[in-house]
Amino acid sequence: MINIGLIGLGTVGSGVVEILNKRKDELKSILGSELFIKRILVKNINKKRDISLGKSLITLEFDEILKDSDISIIIEATGDLEESYNYIKKSLKAGKNVVTANKAVVSKYFEELTNMANKNNCAFLYEASVGGGIPILKPLKEVVATNEITQIQGILNGTCNYILTRMFDEKLAYEEALKIAQELGYAELDPTADIEGYDTLRKLRILGTIALKGKISEEDILVRGIKGIIPFDIEQIKNLGCTVKLIAEVKSTGDKFTAMVQPTIIKKNSYFANVNMAFNSVAFIGNNVGELKFYGSGAGKFPTANAVISDVLDIVKSSYRKGNPLGTRKLKNINEKIEEPYYLRVSSEYKKKFTILYDMADEILSTTDNIAIITKEVSIQNILSLISSLGIDDDKYFLGRIVK
Amino acid sequence: MINIGLIGLGTVGSGVVEILNKRKDELKSILGSELFIKRILVKNINKKRDISLGKSLITLEFDEILKDSDISIIIEATGDLEESYNYIKKSLKAGKNVVTANKAVVSKYFEELTNMANKNNCAFLYEASVGGGIPILKPLKEVVATNEITQIQGILNGTCNYILTRMFDEKLAYEEALKIAQELGYAELDPTADIEGYDTLRKLRILGTIALKGKISEEDILVRGIKGIIPFDIEQIKNLGCTVKLIAEVKSTGDKFTAMVQPTIIKKNSYFANVNMAFNSVAFIGNNVGELKFYGSGAGKFPTANAVISDVLDIVKSSYRKGNPLGTRKLKNINEKIEEPYYLRVSSEYKKKFTILYDMADEILSTTDNIAIITKEVSIQNILSLISSLGIDDDKYFLGRIVK
Repeated sequence: MINIGLIGLGTVGSGVVEILNKRKDELKSILGSELFIKRILVKNINKKRDISLGKSLITLEFDEILKDSDISIIIEATGDLEESYNYIKKSLKAGKNVVTANKAVVSKYFEELTNMANKNNCAFLYEASVGGGIPILKPLKEVVATNEITQIQGILNGTCNYILTRMFDEKLAYEEALKIAQELGYAELDPTADIEGYDTLRKLRILGTIALKGKISEEDILVRGIKGIIPFDIEQIKNLGCTVKLIAEVKSTGDKFTAMVQPTIIKKNSYFANVNMAFNSVAFIGNNVGELKFYGSGAGKFPTANAVISDVLDIVKSSYRKGNPLGTRKLKNINEKIEEPYYLRVSSEYKKKFTILYDMADEILSTTDNIAIITKEVSIQNILSLISSLGIDDDKYFLGRIVK
Repeated sequence: MINIGLIGLGTVGSGVVEILNKRKDELKSILGSELFIKRILVKNINKKRDISLGKSLITLEFDEILKDSDISIIIEATGDLEESYNYIKKSLKAGKNVVTANKAVVSKYFEELTNMANKNNCAFLYEASVGGGIPILKPLKEVVATNEITQIQGILNGTCNYILTRMFDEKLAYEEALKIAQELGYAELDPTADIEGYDTLRKLRILGTIALKGKISEEDILVRGIKGIIPFDIEQIKNLGCTVKLIAEVKSTGDKFTAMVQPTIIKKNSYFANVNMAFNSVAFIGNNVGELKFYGSGAGKFPTANAVISDVLDIVKSSYRKGNPLGTRKLKNINEKIEEPYYLRVSSEYKKKFTILYDMADEILSTTDNIAIITKEVSIQNILSLISSLGIDDDKYFLGRIVK
């Protein structure tokens, strides 16, 4: 019997319990031993739950898991950052293997927790933290051993991608699309981390650090979300034969790199343009293996729980590459060197300030309703300081990077 | 030092040698020990080769590898079927771990070699045999542990996909596109196995057997290649808003399954329509993880060699799921139940036989030059026996399955 301690019984946690129940026999025959959730840490013991569990399984005390020497694997499935960090740290220090789906904690404490796991000879696995159900981190770590990776890109947030898809396909307003995403459970009640790009940023921090074999921190990543986009923008983008996606991207040349999360305007027939709804995708290029692309459900109860259980099986079967997956390359961020064309739309109330914007324009798309231009190749700093110097409010413009 | 015996120094074999040389230091630091090719079996010792090797490395005698107790891993990189089978069998029986890129041998002897490896506590890995550089078999085996898979599809042959892409994009004739594929080294001098679909069939046999957890043999798979397709067909298919790809597919319901490799006419904006040139892709659906898609270089020296080396690293790091990956489900083939619409083009010389074909038509596309129809939903047996009863020569018609 392999005993597991589960922290959190929300969407992911209950998905894990359900899959383990459904596949009890198959897993037993693969592992030669039963996977058993011995204890579950929750915050509210009397909360009504869809799954039926023996009362004795549930506890309010983390120590009942931590100090149970039968428990060798801890699944951390909470959404909280510092609390989660605390659980993981204590578990690793106690010599327990840890699996988490929490990208915030992996992103913030990646090096520390990885080193702690190595020091204590424990597994620290987090496949579910990036790309939901897509097996991406494990293949990426494996490809890194035999390849130099110079580019990694992704659509990494289901909520943003769902909103943009519905806006594009059905001309929904942003607020309408967000509301539906919330009703479907894709978006949180407070969707800030999703729509402002921070969830994507954390995932890129994890992917980029593994791919480039050197630390890329959250602060290294230029981040701009999808808030502020309006149907008028979608119309203009369509007229360009393009669509818009929240794209995360790290590129490197030698020891220099750029890293960004931005609404990105791409050709309608390009690969990422066809990654729609709540799906995610990651693409990268290795110098030996060439281009690889991975696609699947970026979120959702069962896809995420599936990734968590796959990590657990890797621990039980010892079928993951031991050793520190993080490289020691010293990398230099050169985001300030990026110059690209942008789509810029400014609300019509700023018409008087036309002329200054025109100086920056390579092409003028609209002057009648809102002002919309395609800029020359400029740095994001320049364009943002221009917008700010013109006194344009945050919710009165939209800026999308253009990739030709 | 980890000693490797390499069988074959063709495209894949020399790719392996080159990558191991280039990444010597990285691999040593990952493995804590050097990967060393101790001996290479070749057929012609004096052949001019692009890579410089110590003469002592090369041998004509398999026994010099087999009986060398320092060698724990054998990389089988020949193209031959029975010879390769013989090498692998002897290696496994001698307790050596085996990695192969040879799909023909995996397909024909999958169960036998897998059981032999298990019995002798050896690894038998073959990631490179399907999808070239794409990490697909390892993730598939892992997904199978926690999912029921009811559908797996793929574009699995770079040569066919290259030919169809060039015909579609540039209106090349079949012979012209094939010639270029041969010049680029995608297609063999004898391209029969590629263009008649047998290479794809072998890969589907491997994928399907893993995915469905029961044996799908080569004989279970309906196979039809791309030979016979002409620019006229491409035109008709374009007019339907579609493209054509050689698609491999296994579908199951309960213990019944269908399995086929056929030229397949799909909507131009569908996923597989955008897998072009020599790229491959595999897509499948798991009941927990949802839809997953993998895309990358389906062939080529370095992508294939990369997959081989990744298997070698898994052996050295012991980072693969041990145990028998093949399930014991008894599956029943129901290919004879499939009824689908087909695109059928028959050369104009058979015009007199129009009326019989029209009985089968749901839509008539052309009567002026060649005869082209979309059939009602029919079984492949019915349509092929009709074609044969009309005395239509093999090279005078083209038949493509239509997926709406």
